[in-house]
Parts: sequence; structure tokens; C-alpha cells
Amino acid sequence: MNQILVTGKSGRMGQAVIAAVNANPDTELASTHDAGEDLTAAIAKADTAIDFTIHSFTGELLEAAKKAGTRLVIGTTGHSEEEKHAILEASKSLPIVFAPNFSVGVNTLFWLTRHAARILTQDRFDIEVTEMHHRHKIDAPSGTARRLLEILNEETGTSYEDDVKHGRVGLTGARTQREIGMHTLRGGDVVGDHTVMFAADGERVELTHKASSRMTFAAGAARAAVWLAGKPAGLYDMQDVLGLQ
Amino acid sequence: MNQILVTGKSGRMGQAVIAAVNANPDTELASTHDAGEDLTAAIAKADTAIDFTIHSFTGELLEAAKKAGTRLVIGTTGHSEEEKHAILEASKSLPIVFAPNFSVGVNTLFWLTRHAARILTQDRFDIEVTEMHHRHKIDAPSGTARRLLEILNEETGTSYEDDVKHGRVGLTGARTQREIGMHTLRGGDVVGDHTVMFAADGERVELTHKASSRMTFAAGAARAAVWLAGKPAGLYDMQDVLGLQ
Amino acid sequence: MNQILVTGKSGRMGQAVIAAVNANPDTELASTHDAGEDLTAAIAKADTAIDFTIHSFTGELLEAAKKAGTRLVIGTTGHSEEEKHAILEASKSLPIVFAPNFSVGVNTLFWLTRHAARILTQDRFDIEVTEMHHRHKIDAPSGTARRLLEILNEETGTSYEDDVKHGRVGLTGARTQREIGMHTLRGGDVVGDHTVMFAADGERVELTHKASSRMTFAAGAARAAVWLAGKPAGLYDMQDVLGLQ
Amino acid sequence: MNQILVTGKSGRMGQAVIAAVNANPDTELASTHDAGEDLTAAIAKADTAIDFTIHSFTGELLEAAKKAGTRLVIGTTGHSEEEKHAILEASKSLPIVFAPNFSVGVNTLFWLTRHAARILTQDRFDIEVTEMHHRHKIDAPSGTARRLLEILNEETGTSYEDDVKHGRVGLTGARTQREIGMHTLRGGDVVGDHTVMFAADGERVELTHKASSRMTFAAGAARAAVWLAGKPAGLYDMQDVLGLQ
Repeated sequence: MNQILVTGKSGRMGQAVIAAVNANPDTELASTHDAGEDLTAAIAKADTAIDFTIHSFTGELLEAAKKAGTRLVIGTTGHSEEEKHAILEASKSLPIVFAPNFSVGVNTLFWLTRHAARILTQDRFDIEVTEMHHRHKIDAPSGTARRLLEILNEETGTSYEDDVKHGRVGLTGARTQREIGMHTLRGGDVVGDHTVMFAADGERVELTHKASSRMTFAAGAARAAVWLAGKPAGLYDMQDVLGLQ
Repeated sequence: MNQILVTGKSGRMGQAVIAAVNANPDTELASTHDAGEDLTAAIAKADTAIDFTIHSFTGELLEAAKKAGTRLVIGTTGHSEEEKHAILEASKSLPIVFAPNFSVGVNTLFWLTRHAARILTQDRFDIEVTEMHHRHKIDAPSGTARRLLEILNEETGTSYEDDVKHGRVGLTGARTQREIGMHTLRGGDVVGDHTVMFAADGERVELTHKASSRMTFAAGAARAAVWLAGKPAGLYDMQDVLGLQ
Repeated sequence: MNQILVTGKSGRMGQAVIAAVNANPDTELASTHDAGEDLTAAIAKADTAIDFTIHSFTGELLEAAKKAGTRLVIGTTGHSEEEKHAILEASKSLPIVFAPNFSVGVNTLFWLTRHAARILTQDRFDIEVTEMHHRHKIDAPSGTARRLLEILNEETGTSYEDDVKHGRVGLTGARTQREIGMHTLRGGDVVGDHTVMFAADGERVELTHKASSRMTFAAGAARAAVWLAGKPAGLYDMQDVLGLQ
Repeated sequence: MNQILVTGKSGRMGQAVIAAVNANPDTELASTHDAGEDLTAAIAKADTAIDFTIHSFTGELLEAAKKAGTRLVIGTTGHSEEEKHAILEASKSLPIVFAPNFSVGVNTLFWLTRHAARILTQDRFDIEVTEMHHRHKIDAPSGTARRLLEILNEETGTSYEDDVKHGRVGLTGARTQREIGMHTLRGGDVVGDHTVMFAADGERVELTHKASSRMTFAAGAARAAVWLAGKPAGLYDMQDVLGLQ
């Protein structure tokens, strides 16, 4: 049974992780932590820490984990280059999973998108991506859509700057083969929908993910913690956890 | 049995209209016409002419129809103000159906969109519109999407210039209540898909039309011809034909 | 400001209604009630009672409301003929909203489905209905789908028993014009999706509702309570509240 | 340049294959054949024959191909065990592509479905399949849907007979983990839509293919013919042609 420390226990995501740890048959909640509390004591009780607080907490977490020999699952985003470097350094002595999205479904979508693009763009399939999130989201497109575009750019030899079209209006002329349409919908309280569409003469292939709850991200983090047990020191992501490399 | 003249008989749309006239139990192909042929003779054989050629042909058609007393179904688009005025004048002595789209489904979508907007925007429902057409289409958004936006603007007190957003990218901030997202997808050989989405906290309503064949437009024109029989002089559109006003 | 009694205050739906009453600017929580508590005292403080408990509680609620002169919003389902009759009798002296679904979106879908069917089935449009709910739902199809089928049956002169097909398998032969396909999907934790599809040669029209939260039903009930204020005694449903008759 | 014989030249599918052979830069129409014509003369002019006629023609085709040393692309279905055996025997001396569906997109859907099932069903994802075809189709579900179910059965250890549910109605009880819902929609002139849905708590993954034209099948057959050039004798399918094994 993996003993888990959950940081940010009072936050919305911390609460979801605690619930996921309790629900997973292979994990047990060993300790929790909130800002201002004693991290050393909390981490000493755990095999693995799961952190969804904020990137500026990562440095302190890495130090405590190195001293205690605790494995890490890091779900915060927005790290500076320096902070990313610190994670990489720590992974030389600790097993760490560091990923932008812990949902099984989204990571599967990443993997399917790469392989679909590899197969389909041998022919002429035009690629369009749509995403929808709630009305309060302030940036466009979503981080998950950005990752989908990265994968599509890698597989088709295109670039975000030159080939991704965010909206079309007026006399656009015919569609070019290189362009990738990106369409960012906003409205209501949608948790997150993403679709990658490949359109050819006579047929379309569409890959879609629809998230309806943050629990899916928390459950993925618990799964990552279980997977980490027994792994050698190193830096992993959810594609490793899911065996999708 | 309504005797029908089909103009532009060699064109793709003319061929479709001929097929539709032959298929409709209440219409019969009386004559056809192509550029350079004798219009007066052709129109004399018909009760109603169906024209999908080009807007610059409308003037000649109106003159011939007035002389022969022939009803008109006009499906061309892109008329100048002068040409539109000529249609209006002719409709004082002739029954004319003049419409941008003859599909039963699209006209139903127009009607449903108006009523859904009227009901739903009493609450806060955010509106997003998507359309997809084949890779060869050179303008964005489609004429049908433009008409949907007009209807939505009328029902919500918004305007195409100020409130319709063609694509979102970067730090957009939270979505405003007035904005209408418009997303124009291009790819493959898609004949035409349109969706109007109303998104609130906890629920979404979506209205979708998918066209798979130009025959649907031709069949709508034949239906308009049947409907015109016995109508007084006047200018009608497909909403009249379908009883949707 | 409308003073509201919420029954079943400890239940999942009661909690949602309390939140909706607090969120609606025109309603105020006057009192709550749970099984075993004094209903007479609770109802005396309220203009309107909102009840989502269980149909067997309706009789007691009607008696208390008649004595206190309190308006009623009844969201329970599964009433016997006798219980329905009691509601009808009580509505002679009280204004009552009684509806199977209080979501604005679902009621709009009902209304749009009726009018779309009325327009489209003048031509040959084949009708198929799909719904999806979570894996724990034990009956099929959903009550909302059943209501959609009722509307479609009324508009097309068909019946649930004779013309609705629940699944197709084997050598079915060609589709008949009268049949309505009903497809009940189950999986995950889907709150509730419904689609009505009208398919003709060359085009399809689809009307879809997607629920993501029970709050939408609670908010509709609060809206019904506001609407009831000042109405004469009578039996109303959400179509009345939304002005959709 | 590959020299191609197209059989069944007068049929709808034969015409599509001729168009595809003319459109493919690596193939050239060498000869055509219809029932009653001299197959030996026609096949002598070709490197490869493409056949979409009828399974009962396969025997004669195999004999002629063996004599002429002509490669084969066989797109007919419904073969008896004996006929299938004859294809296998012939493939010992000839390179043959034999596949139920030649569309790049559908074969990609097959491949993606297998891999998605392998990844996702490590967790509890409930699987539902929908397909829609035109109103004239007489069997349910489609051959393509049957193949999707085979793949899903293989990956999840379930069976078509015991675990696939064709429609749900009445008091079904909660959904079991093993069952796969299969939903067959019929209407209009839909060429063919297929969706495989994986639904878990909090998220859904959906894989969809939409066919809009038979040309996609013809183009896939021409591609198979090009791929066959230089291959050793053997029995291949479209997964081989597309490098998807």
C-alpha cells in the first residue's frame, strides 16, 4: 500500500486528490499539508507526495523530498526555466512524474492524435482542432489544445506560429494543405471538450475528449503515484505511466 | 401539374433542378434554357421558371417573365441594389420566390434558431456558431452562417461588427455576455455543416444542420414552384413557402 | 421577494434547490422541511413551496398548502392516478406548477422538437432519438426521452407501442417511414444527453440537449416559483412558465 | 506505372474505381471487364486487377489471375468458406489484398479503436458503439460496425453473442462492465457514420468516422494496387497496405 502525502489540502484540487487517494485501492492517505505547516514532518510519513498547489512551492518540495527520499507526482504548471531545471536535477536521485495533464483520457487523446496524424497525413487530410471551456477561462486556446497542436506540428512538419489559424474571416482563399485550423469556443460551465478532425475527400476522422469532472485529474495523479513505486530515479510523464511511449 | 422552365440546363445546379422537377409529382419539365438560346420561346411553355444561373441574368429573366406572365423562383445570389430593386418592381405584377437557400432543413434551422434565441436568452445562454465547408470555399463565414448571425443579432440586440468574434487567441479575458463566437472550419469535401450552440451553467442546447447533397436545394426550388401556383403577385422567400413566418 | 419553503432539505436535490433559491435575486429561503418535522409551521412562513422529495409526500403537502394558501412547485414524478387527481383538485384553489423536468434547456428542446417535427415531416424526414445517461441508471429510455417520443408521436400520428424501435439487429429490411429509432446509451457518469435527429435525402437536422449539473433543474424550479406569484389558481407546467405554449 | 484491370465496369462501384485509377498518379487503366466479356484478354493487359463485383465471381478471377500472373485487389464480401479457402490457396502464388473496407479513414478507425481499447480498459471505461446508414440498408449493424465490435471483443475478452447489447428498453438494471452497447441508426441517405465511445467517471473519449462518398473506397483500392507492386505472394489486407499492423 502506497502511503501518500497530499499538499494543498484545503484547496479544490487538494480535496479532489484526497478523495482519489482514498478511492484508489493501492493508495492510503498518510499525511496532508497546507501552507504554513511543517512539510518535513508530513513528508516523512509518505512514500510519495502529490502536489497540485503552485509552481513556486516546487523548490521547497524538492528539497524536502530529497532529504526524506520521497517520490513525487507534480501537477503544477507555469514553472520558470530555473524551476524546471531544479526538477530535472532532483530527478537524478528521485523518481518524479511531472505532467501538464493527469487524465487518462486526455493522455490517450494525445497518443491517438500523434498516431492518427502519422497515418492520415500520408494522404491529404486537412486538420482542424476545436476546444470548448467555460466562460471564465481567460486564455485561448487551452493548454491541452496547445499540446495537441504541438503533436500535430511535430507530425506534419508545421509550426504554431506560421501554420495554425485562429479563426477565419473574409476572403480567405482556398484552404492550404499546411494550415491547421484552431477554434476556441467559450460558454457556460463546460469543464473541457477537445476535438481533432482530419478531413479528406469523402471521409472524416474525428478524435474527441470530453471532461466532466476534475476528479479525473486527481485519479490520474493517484495512479501515477502507484506506478512510481519501485521505479528508478528519473523524470517521467503520464505517457510513461500509461505505457504510451 | 405545374409546367416548369429550368434555366442554365447545362450547369451543375441546372442538372440538379431538372432531376428535382422530374422527381416531384406536382411538377413537369416544360422547357429548358441555356445562355444564347431563345428565352421567349422557352418561357412561353412554362407556368413557372426556376433560375440558379447568375445574378446578371435576372434582368432579362424578369422582362421575359412579365411578358409571358410566368411565375419565378430565383435562387441566384450576389445581386446589386439595382438588380434587387428590379426584382421588387417585378413582384408587383408577378408572384416571385427569392431566397438565399432553398433547403427545407436550413430554413427550418433559421426558424428554430430565432425561436431558441428568443426563449433561451431570457436567461444567460452564451451563443457560439460553427460551420464547416470543403477546402475550396474562399470566403468565411458561409452565407448561411451569416444569415444565422443576422437572426441571432436581431434576437439579442447585438451586431455583426461589434459582437461577433471570429476566433480567439491569447489573453482574451473572460467571455462577455454579448459576444457571439463564430468558428469557420474548412477541410475535405464537406458540403456544409452548421451548428448554433447555446451554453449556460449546467446545460447546452445545440441546433445542427448537415447537408450532404446539392439535390436538397434543387428539391426545395421545385417545392417553391408548386407553392407559388395560385398565389397573388408578391415577393416571397422560403420561410413563406414552408409556412414558417 | 418571494418567500420559499424547500422540502427535503437534507437530500441532494433539496440542497441544490436551497442553493438556487439563494442565488435567484427574486427568491428568499423562508423555511425548510425534512421528514418528521412540522410541515404546518414551515409552510406558514412561505409564499411558495418547492418539493423534490417523493410522490407519496404530495398528499400531505397539498393539504398543508391548501390550509396556508401557499403556491406549489412540484418536481416529484411517478404519481399514481389518484395522486395526480389530488393535484388537479388542489389546483382549483391553488396555483401549482407540476412538471417532469424544470430545466430551461430541456423544455426548450421539447418545444423545438414539436415545431421541427411539424415542419419537417411534411417532407420525408426519418426520425431517430438518442439519449445517454450514467451507468447507474436502471431504466431505459429516460423520462425526458419518453416525453420527446410522446411529442414526436403526437406530431407524426405514430405510437410508442407500434412505431418506436429500441435497437435494430439482423435482417431488418429497409427502414419504414413511420418508425422512430430510439437508442439508449449508458456509461460513465453522464448527467444526461438527448438528441433528436431528422434525416432526409441530402440533409439532416439535429436538436441536442446536454445537461452537466443538477443545478439547472433547481434553478428552473426557483424560476417557476417567481413566475407563479400573482397567477390565478390552476395547474401549470414549465412550458407555461417559459411562455412556450 | 501500374496497369490496372477494373472489373464490373458498368456498375456504380466499378465506375468509381475507374475514376480513382485515372486520378491516382501511379496507376493507369489498362483494361475493363463486364460479365460476359473475355476475362483472359482483359487480365493479360494488366499488372493488377481490382474487383468489386460479387463474391461468386472470385473463383473465375483467381483462375485467370494465376494463369496471367496478375496481382489482385479483392473488395467483394460475403464469401463462403470454400471461396475464402480458394483465395488463401491462390495467395501462395500471387500477391493479393483482400479487405472488407478500403477506406483509409475506416482502417485508421479500426487501428485507433484497438489501441484506445487496450489503453482505456485498464481503467473502467464503458464502451458504446453507434453507426448510421441510409434508410435503404437492410441489415444491422453494418459490416464496419461488426468489425469494430470484433476488435473490441478481442481487446476486452468479451463476445458478440454474450456481451453486445442491441438496444435497451424497460427496467434494464445498472450497466455491467462487460457489456458493449451497439446502436444502429437508419435514415435519409447517410453514406456511413461510425462512433466508438469510451465513457468513464469524469471523462469520455470518442472516435468517429464519417463517410460522405464511395470514392473513398475506390481510392483506397487504387492505393492497394500501387502498394502490391513488388510484394511477394501472400494474403494482405488494408492494415498491411497502410502499415498499421
